[in-house]
Amino acid sequence: MGQPAQVPSRTPQLEPNSKNRTRLWLLIPLLCFISLSTLRLGLVGPLTQRSQPASTEPAFPDLPRHCTAIPPISSSVLEARRNTLAKRLHQLGAAAYIAEPSSSAAYYFNVSEAHWRLSERPLLFVVTPSVDGVSDEGDVTANVSLLTPKFEATRAKLLPLSPSAYIQWAEEEDPFAVLFDALHLPSNSTVYIDGNARFFVADGLQRALPRGQVQNAPPQVVEIRERKTPEEISILRCANEATLLAIRATHKRMHIGMHESDARELVAGALAAVGLERAGCLTLFGENAALPHGSGTNRVLKKEDFALFDCTGQLHGYWSDVTRTLALPESSIPDDHLAIWHHVHAAQSLARLATYPGALTNHPDIVARARLALDGYGPFFTHRLGHGIGLDVHESPYLRGVPVSQATLIQTGHTFSNEPGVYIEGKVGVRLEDCMVVEEGASYATFLTAGVGGAALSPWEP
Amino acid sequence: MGQPAQVPSRTPQLEPNSKNRTRLWLLIPLLCFISLSTLRLGLVGPLTQRSQPASTEPAFPDLPRHCTAIPPISSSVLEARRNTLAKRLHQLGAAAYIAEPSSSAAYYFNVSEAHWRLSERPLLFVVTPSVDGVSDEGDVTANVSLLTPKFEATRAKLLPLSPSAYIQWAEEEDPFAVLFDALHLPSNSTVYIDGNARFFVADGLQRALPRGQVQNAPPQVVEIRERKTPEEISILRCANEATLLAIRATHKRMHIGMHESDARELVAGALAAVGLERAGCLTLFGENAALPHGSGTNRVLKKEDFALFDCTGQLHGYWSDVTRTLALPESSIPDDHLAIWHHVHAAQSLARLATYPGALTNHPDIVARARLALDGYGPFFTHRLGHGIGLDVHESPYLRGVPVSQATLIQTGHTFSNEPGVYIEGKVGVRLEDCMVVEEGASYATFLTAGVGGAALSPWEP
Repeated sequence: MGQPAQVPSRTPQLEPNSKNRTRLWLLIPLLCFISLSTLRLGLVGPLTQRSQPASTEPAFPDLPRHCTAIPPISSSVLEARRNTLAKRLHQLGAAAYIAEPSSSAAYYFNVSEAHWRLSERPLLFVVTPSVDGVSDEGDVTANVSLLTPKFEATRAKLLPLSPSAYIQWAEEEDPFAVLFDALHLPSNSTVYIDGNARFFVADGLQRALPRGQVQNAPPQVVEIRERKTPEEISILRCANEATLLAIRATHKRMHIGMHESDARELVAGALAAVGLERAGCLTLFGENAALPHGSGTNRVLKKEDFALFDCTGQLHGYWSDVTRTLALPESSIPDDHLAIWHHVHAAQSLARLATYPGALTNHPDIVARARLALDGYGPFFTHRLGHGIGLDVHESPYLRGVPVSQATLIQTGHTFSNEPGVYIEGKVGVRLEDCMVVEEGASYATFLTAGVGGAALSPWEP
Repeated sequence: MGQPAQVPSRTPQLEPNSKNRTRLWLLIPLLCFISLSTLRLGLVGPLTQRSQPASTEPAFPDLPRHCTAIPPISSSVLEARRNTLAKRLHQLGAAAYIAEPSSSAAYYFNVSEAHWRLSERPLLFVVTPSVDGVSDEGDVTANVSLLTPKFEATRAKLLPLSPSAYIQWAEEEDPFAVLFDALHLPSNSTVYIDGNARFFVADGLQRALPRGQVQNAPPQVVEIRERKTPEEISILRCANEATLLAIRATHKRMHIGMHESDARELVAGALAAVGLERAGCLTLFGENAALPHGSGTNRVLKKEDFALFDCTGQLHGYWSDVTRTLALPESSIPDDHLAIWHHVHAAQSLARLATYPGALTNHPDIVARARLALDGYGPFFTHRLGHGIGLDVHESPYLRGVPVSQATLIQTGHTFSNEPGVYIEGKVGVRLEDCMVVEEGASYATFLTAGVGGAALSPWEP
């Protein structure tokens, strides 16, 4: 037996890291069913202590938790999401939507890989549309089934959802055949599967439904999760504000001569202080910042260096993503590097104005790229302008310069990172990133950091 | 930017757990290219220290590292694997085999998710067969290509493989179209994809090759990894021996009244002392052991309780998996629980004898199940008998009681867990697990723990 990947109640006990802290908290509602008192005394207490070093000695006493007033997504919102999905399935003539534990399952069921780690034994969330009423105009609601390995059914029933059916497959059965037998779908049904499911799952489903179509969920379905609701936007806004506040608090405590690892530790403390989960930063000094995803060395900060912080953290499952390229009061940044900073800053401002409902997703990228090309830095802006952000740090839709035929429309509720950069290897790297939201009735996107001042003003005013 | 999932050089610095320790070691060859001196002084030194608490105070001074003489898989073996794959592709008329970073990529390229974490930007390993000679009998060797995001190409080139081509896709391109353009495959090609790849990757490949067939790798390909070579068997053997030694050393230090968490901590120290990586155990006392994957509570050990340890650990990337259900000298185990132990023990012995080349994979499961049914415990053996083991803790082939039409043949080189169990909820759980190997010329399987005595003799002699 003994596959760690299957045992959420066991893994956290071995790895007291920030990811598992989240996992552990997510487990609490489950574990409460079993034994509240034993739990508190024995397991969760010590682990919670171990994994929150920042709370034992407050490294940032002047930095309060920023988002205590922001509630998580309520169960009625989750239900509404599932009903929207069911209506969409019905409109498209699809019989079911299927997801493995993933961010999509978190979106619809509040169950992610943190609750149930993927193993070779499929556990699948299924939504089928249930139509009430006499015509196709009748009310369509979501019918939820959970396919679970039979011998893990006791644990599956502790997951925080109330499906209309737990469909159990025994060890000697084909899980996919068991699922379709129980669902009674027409043999020529179309079934949508979440794109992040593993191929063997999709392949097994297709084999078990040979006359049907097992397909990647189409844009009309993916779009539901892409367009954020006000509850989601308020969480994303607060998470991004908190991240920027943590970077600014870190900025005030930096000094020339410190290592990248010192800065990383400092900012980790700040992110914990403001109340973000699973937080982490890429911290890169000087020419190290020219490698957008890091160098692996541990450079010392010199007077002529920029310091780049690219930080993410979670609030109620939703991610922040903020990058600042900054300088200290005593820094002496070369003029050409300062010029790059201002070019990137201008590109970021323009890209925000180019992000509005009805524009194509390639448009902000093209605008930012054109601005940097004008300044001669076109070849050094080596990545896309941005990505969608929500329950995944990077999710669709993406802001990238694809041909018009592959671009999609920017719509209200979309949230994107806006992160132009210039990277000259061996010399300098500058990236500025704020996430933005496309709101109803606005002419262009708003920065999610606007509540605490928004975009950087200069390398000294991040 | 800021997706932790994409930054191996960054994540380990934030999460000093055992998983990342492995990652860090795997990174060392890469980092050496960049800056050997900085690395030693700045980054790896302190982390290595932090992540090996067991070495600073040897909790088990009498428990030496067990596998220091066992070498990792050599690069020539890796090359031979790729050539075997290429020959198989050629025989089957397939044009390519494609994998994401995964245990399959580790098998062929020594690159796993620990080196390159999955993100929304595909990085793909591709093997195409290259035929030398005038006829189909000519020598077939593997041609390796790596598809990488262009802006991460610098980092991709640090991965420990030397492909004949780095195929780079720019942010505004379709990665799958770029891949097929570069490979120049016939438009009606058959392409195999590793079953653990994500569905959107398979789907994207199929869309980019509309006249071709993108298929789950067939049994003839999967079989290569399933049948272990002598080098692999010697690693698996030592890892499993070490795990059993650690459980036995832990057994000697246990006492009535300790918590499950104490036992877990103790055995973790023992596993570290014997030299296993990413090790962990499920530790369950009394009726908690009736939930095969754990209860989430932290029970105290009473005199009438069995203690169940289900432990895994890694050596050179290969996993061990050993379970012991044991009693202390001062234990007073009820007779009916003792009887269950001996029934499970008998089932395990029989199942080993039923595991031989040419038998079907359902046969050992049926034999063990029949034995327990005879004793009246049939309904309480709720899971399959075993699983393949190698670079994944659980991998194909599986020993489960499927219909004959779905069973496959047991072949030499197969390694399986053999883990019958009886679980009576609220009362008692007993599982005994040793992994076994089917060797050339043997009449039945040998336990991988045989070098240190093999299966348990009694609850007091694990």
